[in-house]
Amino acid sequence: MKIYADEQSGNCYKVKLLCGLLSIEHQWIHVDILAGDTAAQDFLTKNPNGKIPLLTLDDGRHLWESNAIINYLAHGSALLPSDPFLLAKVQQWQFFEQYSHEPYIAVARFIAKYLGLPEAKKVEYEAKQAGGHKALAVMESQLANTPFLVGDSITTADISLYGYTHVAHEGGFDLTGYPALQAWLLRIEALTNYVAMG
Amino acid sequence: MKIYADEQSGNCYKVKLLCGLLSIEHQWIHVDILAGDTAAQDFLTKNPNGKIPLLTLDDGRHLWESNAIINYLAHGSALLPSDPFLLAKVQQWQFFEQYSHEPYIAVARFIAKYLGLPEAKKVEYEAKQAGGHKALAVMESQLANTPFLVGDSITTADISLYGYTHVAHEGGFDLTGYPALQAWLLRIEALTNYVAMG
Repeated sequence: MKIYADEQSGNCYKVKLLCGLLSIEHQWIHVDILAGDTAAQDFLTKNPNGKIPLLTLDDGRHLWESNAIINYLAHGSALLPSDPFLLAKVQQWQFFEQYSHEPYIAVARFIAKYLGLPEAKKVEYEAKQAGGHKALAVMESQLANTPFLVGDSITTADISLYGYTHVAHEGGFDLTGYPALQAWLLRIEALTNYVAMG
Repeated sequence: MKIYADEQSGNCYKVKLLCGLLSIEHQWIHVDILAGDTAAQDFLTKNPNGKIPLLTLDDGRHLWESNAIINYLAHGSALLPSDPFLLAKVQQWQFFEQYSHEPYIAVARFIAKYLGLPEAKKVEYEAKQAGGHKALAVMESQLANTPFLVGDSITTADISLYGYTHVAHEGGFDLTGYPALQAWLLRIEALTNYVAMG
């Protein structure tokens, strides 16, 4: 199995962390977005949406979208519940991540860390702060009640949200106001086979 | 089961269409976003993210995020594959919908249809066109090869993408350049128990 990705991307890191936790062997193929790798014709035949991460199975089938990839790889493991409602709750948090969390926290981080917070991007950067804090507050409200997002044990929903939350400070987000979230970060980092980003 | 929603929202309409196709009995509770219903404390205890649709089961448990809701309701039906890879492909398209499709097509539609395309929103509206057409082209590339997004039969992925695609013209998107996509829209509209929006 091949994983086309960039370690610095939180979306790609989710796949790396999942593979670490489940000891899944894979070939990691570095893709350089800024060099145009994902816009190359060969890449677009694998993922017409031109994004990483991308999973290619040994039989040649492709799967894209980070959260779909980790759910596929976690199928049958303890990281993905089999109960239909709990499985839906995992997806609920993952859709929340892609719509209400990543577009604020990951984008603010990108502007600050990779673009160096240029003057021309300051308005956009500032505009991302409120949405990011709203997403963190939603997580805090859940994590104040349960140790992991879907209950007592870790699921792929936690991996999805951990991806960019644990580097949210790089996007200017101060996490001191979210004690339950901070405890949750430490809980994940204490897991056997935990793999750090980068 | 209660569904808190607004019929004019594509995200809510996905749930209505799914319930129609599977003949799922439910109580539809109209929520008025512009009147502040989703920001009310009572609503936030059900969904701390303050969005619709929201599903409340008879036992009081809540589930939010449109795609998670329809996957839950479709569990065990022909609309959701049991094969792990196909199930992941359904989710791939649904995450694509939330990240690469909805933020362009639904937002352009909202600006045009509900805000009346005011001068102050014209730059944002125009900026949404390229991203929307990119998403439509990605769908076209798949639908030129398979009748539905994940293969030969309809899945919840089709319902997720149908939600805003079939009203994309209200956001200024001309679909004449996407013949396979247009045939797919008609294929869905010909289904037994199809329910129209609004």
